[in-house]
Amino acid sequence: MAQYPEQINNLIETLSRWPGLGPKAAERVVFYLMKQNSDNIKLLLNNIAELKNMVKTCDNCFNVSTQNPCKICSDKTRDQNTICVVSDPQDIPIIEKTGDFKGTYHVLGGAISPAHNISPKQLKIKELINRIKNNSYQEIIIATNPDLEGESTAMYLAQQLKPFNIKVTKLAKGLSIGSTIEYTDEITISSALKGRQEV
Amino acid sequence: MAQYPEQINNLIETLSRWPGLGPKAAERVVFYLMKQNSDNIKLLLNNIAELKNMVKTCDNCFNVSTQNPCKICSDKTRDQNTICVVSDPQDIPIIEKTGDFKGTYHVLGGAISPAHNISPKQLKIKELINRIKNNSYQEIIIATNPDLEGESTAMYLAQQLKPFNIKVTKLAKGLSIGSTIEYTDEITISSALKGRQEV
Repeated sequence: MAQYPEQINNLIETLSRWPGLGPKAAERVVFYLMKQNSDNIKLLLNNIAELKNMVKTCDNCFNVSTQNPCKICSDKTRDQNTICVVSDPQDIPIIEKTGDFKGTYHVLGGAISPAHNISPKQLKIKELINRIKNNSYQEIIIATNPDLEGESTAMYLAQQLKPFNIKVTKLAKGLSIGSTIEYTDEITISSALKGRQEV
Repeated sequence: MAQYPEQINNLIETLSRWPGLGPKAAERVVFYLMKQNSDNIKLLLNNIAELKNMVKTCDNCFNVSTQNPCKICSDKTRDQNTICVVSDPQDIPIIEKTGDFKGTYHVLGGAISPAHNISPKQLKIKELINRIKNNSYQEIIIATNPDLEGESTAMYLAQQLKPFNIKVTKLAKGLSIGSTIEYTDEITISSALKGRQEV
């Protein structure tokens, strides 16, 4: 650690633990903060405090929200018979942007990953099953990431949901729009072949 | 901006302005912060507040410090007749680590850059000249970065310091230790040739 005053070193250490920031980037941020005027710092402190005080998770779908149940769960104009299961709250705005999904969500809070010590118990899977037990849903769309952890989670979920005799689907895999076949990995190509559609 | 609660969007916007963080990285940080417990958030808020309250700049050399004048400026065991001029406080620990410099510093607070609207007036150059006027220094070592802005700043400083008949030096340019000649740019090679030394 460089020979800075203790307060600088403390903040560098804290910020280094943030995702995407290493010690050098954290140091740059600290010196950027030192150049900010007091009003900007107050605003930042308020922003962080408000985040913790005002933003909660919805008890039904576990999306972030300032109300409980959240806007989507309490919106009667949405299709309350369909659940789209995602890993993280960040996935929801991306799906919402398409305008193609009008149902509800369920945020698992991650994906099964033995490497990161995340077992099914740490995800909101029990809560999803309770939702399904207590309501009549028509379809559960699994929208976990198309990587090892996401696919394992999807497989695990599909198994858990089997007893409920409910339609369970997964997002289609295939070529990304704008990609080139030359630079697409063979697993994606293989998925695109299997999922090929008549034109 | 995604459809998050206002508090999340506000903090994403604030953090996006931090150096090295774009909107997507800022979003990741915000969701990381939401997972932290209240104690961690309190610690973070304290760290930031303390940074602003406790850490000041030394009135003599403009390095960051909790005391004024700073430890280096008030350390009688150091050579108070030499000033090493740097752009940023972050440069000082790097030079200190060598153990090869025992003089004092002067932090300019940046480098001359027409592209970023930074003129000599915005740097602590007047203050450097005042230090030189009011004390008898033996040598001023200019340690600005070896890039366009740093070199312009060094040239400008050298001109400004000429009337004082004081020894003004610059850090040597040449091959970096561990580099290969094959991958070294021609300007560095040219500098290394000009500065070649007998063995």
